[in-house]
Amino acid sequence: MTRQLHLNAFLMTTGHHEASWRLPESDPYAHVDLAHYAGLARTAERGTFDSLFLADGPHLWGSVAQRPAGALEPLTLLTALATATEHIGLIATASTSYNSPYNLARRFASLDIISGGRAGWNIVTTAGAEAARNFGVDEEPAHAERYARAAEFLDVALKLWDSWEDDAIVADKAAGVWGDDAKIHPPRHRGTYFGVEGALNVPRSPQGYPLLVQAGSSEDGKAFAARYAEAVFTAQQTVEEARAFYADLKARTAAAGRDPDHVKVLPGIVPVIGSTEAEARAHEQLLEDHIVHRHGVANLEGLLRLPAGTLELDALLPAELPPEDAIEGARSRYTLVVGLARRERLTVRQLIGRLGGGRGHLTFAGTPEQVADAIETWFTQGAADGFNIMPPVLPSGLETFVDHVVPILRARGLLRTAYGPRRTLRERYGLPRPANQYAAPALATA
Amino acid sequence: MTRQLHLNAFLMTTGHHEASWRLPESDPYAHVDLAHYAGLARTAERGTFDSLFLADGPHLWGSVAQRPAGALEPLTLLTALATATEHIGLIATASTSYNSPYNLARRFASLDIISGGRAGWNIVTTAGAEAARNFGVDEEPAHAERYARAAEFLDVALKLWDSWEDDAIVADKAAGVWGDDAKIHPPRHRGTYFGVEGALNVPRSPQGYPLLVQAGSSEDGKAFAARYAEAVFTAQQTVEEARAFYADLKARTAAAGRDPDHVKVLPGIVPVIGSTEAEARAHEQLLEDHIVHRHGVANLEGLLRLPAGTLELDALLPAELPPEDAIEGARSRYTLVVGLARRERLTVRQLIGRLGGGRGHLTFAGTPEQVADAIETWFTQGAADGFNIMPPVLPSGLETFVDHVVPILRARGLLRTAYGPRRTLRERYGLPRPANQYAAPALATA
Repeated sequence: MTRQLHLNAFLMTTGHHEASWRLPESDPYAHVDLAHYAGLARTAERGTFDSLFLADGPHLWGSVAQRPAGALEPLTLLTALATATEHIGLIATASTSYNSPYNLARRFASLDIISGGRAGWNIVTTAGAEAARNFGVDEEPAHAERYARAAEFLDVALKLWDSWEDDAIVADKAAGVWGDDAKIHPPRHRGTYFGVEGALNVPRSPQGYPLLVQAGSSEDGKAFAARYAEAVFTAQQTVEEARAFYADLKARTAAAGRDPDHVKVLPGIVPVIGSTEAEARAHEQLLEDHIVHRHGVANLEGLLRLPAGTLELDALLPAELPPEDAIEGARSRYTLVVGLARRERLTVRQLIGRLGGGRGHLTFAGTPEQVADAIETWFTQGAADGFNIMPPVLPSGLETFVDHVVPILRARGLLRTAYGPRRTLRERYGLPRPANQYAAPALATA
Repeated sequence: MTRQLHLNAFLMTTGHHEASWRLPESDPYAHVDLAHYAGLARTAERGTFDSLFLADGPHLWGSVAQRPAGALEPLTLLTALATATEHIGLIATASTSYNSPYNLARRFASLDIISGGRAGWNIVTTAGAEAARNFGVDEEPAHAERYARAAEFLDVALKLWDSWEDDAIVADKAAGVWGDDAKIHPPRHRGTYFGVEGALNVPRSPQGYPLLVQAGSSEDGKAFAARYAEAVFTAQQTVEEARAFYADLKARTAAAGRDPDHVKVLPGIVPVIGSTEAEARAHEQLLEDHIVHRHGVANLEGLLRLPAGTLELDALLPAELPPEDAIEGARSRYTLVVGLARRERLTVRQLIGRLGGGRGHLTFAGTPEQVADAIETWFTQGAADGFNIMPPVLPSGLETFVDHVVPILRARGLLRTAYGPRRTLRERYGLPRPANQYAAPALATA
């Protein structure tokens, strides 16, 4: 069989374009409407996507004037979606900086059990002082410290998920023995950031533990991904940059002693689809016309750590900007945005227009055939194992993709036509079920 | 209309009797089976219960040899059950000692939205060193400190749930204004245990916030309940004790400046039902015959803080026991168990038999008519506003209650025959929707 594309549906309220909520078709209350998300999940499942995904940060982001704000907590929403779907993987973002390993490990194990092995965790370290101040921390933690904490978090979580061997339950009613205490392994962890003594109070889940996903593209982020991630979401503007990122991440993964095929690289793409190229461009323009520029300027000033009022709409970015090293927050996003503005000599207005669609992800406007071509090119030229599909408007953008792009990808033999017998999210991504670190290795049979 | 009973179904794997999993009918894997819980929820809904409830503690409790251990995390499981039911309230236990207010407030608000206003929170402070050591704390926190933290947790959580006024979303597409920043109220809380600066990132939910439930019966627990709780679960062995507890809690609630009718008192009852009294007794004996006494002795030694090997099966409890003041953990449970043993001069074996059924809650064996009589007596004699129904075996015990006791209660006019137009959990319990502490009071109209 031809190598198969992996598709993830990145769901975001009324769509990834920041002005999408203003379109006549959009429901401005969609962000708290389970039926809206259940419909999206079923559409993605109709398109035989591998998974769907929800971003998250534990704070209210900016002004609520700007766009639909506040959302259902991702693990909670995905649990409800687990019951509305049968096959699709369910990837929730959760922070290693503002959770405790015991609680979070329980929740992911519970979702994995409830969904029959379809849980995934997009591991984020959560930049920014706003989030920190919701958890009693005055200053945002330093970039390096966030990643050190994340690594220890992962090590503890993996111990917790392995704390029950797969066959720890014996269920011997006659003897009155339900479980085998010898197959329970308390982590007894005492580290820099965490102390976790006891075993998890959830048995080992169908996948062993959730699919581990990562999206940071900074140096620390890539090192973390090489060590732990099984799928990586990334923002890449050109196929050349994407190929370099892909090759680098696969090499780092091999250097970390892992099979490079066990990390799947999925760049984000914002497909703006029209039945003609002109129709696609007109749709893009319609969205751009709905951008409220005062919001865009404020967001950009926030990202670049500039005082309010610094940026002018019809000028280029200032020649002098704070260096990347000074940014403790979303460092790779900063680099991407500044790079894009400099490379294409964009005014602030133009930059806001480009970012409005996908916050730095590739926006591609065209016919279904052209979108499929772009996907195939990146996929076959060593730039991607699949894509993080980020429709500019929801639900219509996902429906259009599934109805018009998916059939082309299937006809080209690049995408499954049905889910088939594989059940778990890891199986869909072609990844092995992890062995339990505490279990005795199976004896080789002669 | 006659004053109406409130019924809560306390769900616990294969049942509240510790030996229930050993019966031939029981599924020893039920604790991780969503279908098992969905079936229970639908049965409770068929019985027009107000709510269902899941207990919890963030640690693996004792030996897994003893009984089904490890369970789905309650808020996760209840989210899945929200989609499997239409009317019934969903009450999850969560700890104020081992959660952060921001994360927990988000999750309850999300469940309340997803369920259409059916979320409840059983607030626990979580005793014991085992839980503490899963969260980097070496010694269990002192009883008084746990309650001080719980009170601050509640105050912050209530601010977070009110941080969006009900009409904060304006959704003005033409003007490009989604929300009204003036109706967002960041808590800006800096206290002893928590610092929470920003507003919640979930809009105000249908109920405003989840129904607040409490179950501690210590002095601190009762003071806390008087201040915050809208429903109280309690373990009472006799109608006299229950009346005293009921009168005391209502008086404390009035003294705290609240309407005493706004806290509903629900004692636990373990109904062992047979078509004749003899059949009920035989069922009770069958369960007791399945108790593994070595587990019961170990559990009792743990509760009483006695060294292993202290207790003898066929002797009374030792005359000298650690005083209640020395117990930092489940203080009211300690008092109840010692009181029961002393009052009825029970041997350790007899005490284990009594506790095996309901861990100190009232076990009542009889015909459906007798069970209904007991419920009516407590309800009409000032001992209860309703009951926490704790079937010894699940699902059969709940089915029997719904099929045989519920019709009697309905015939007597004590229990609704259908859910009717009220939608939220608070409406079912006859409680008002809380006003937002930040909103301007509505103007009186002449």
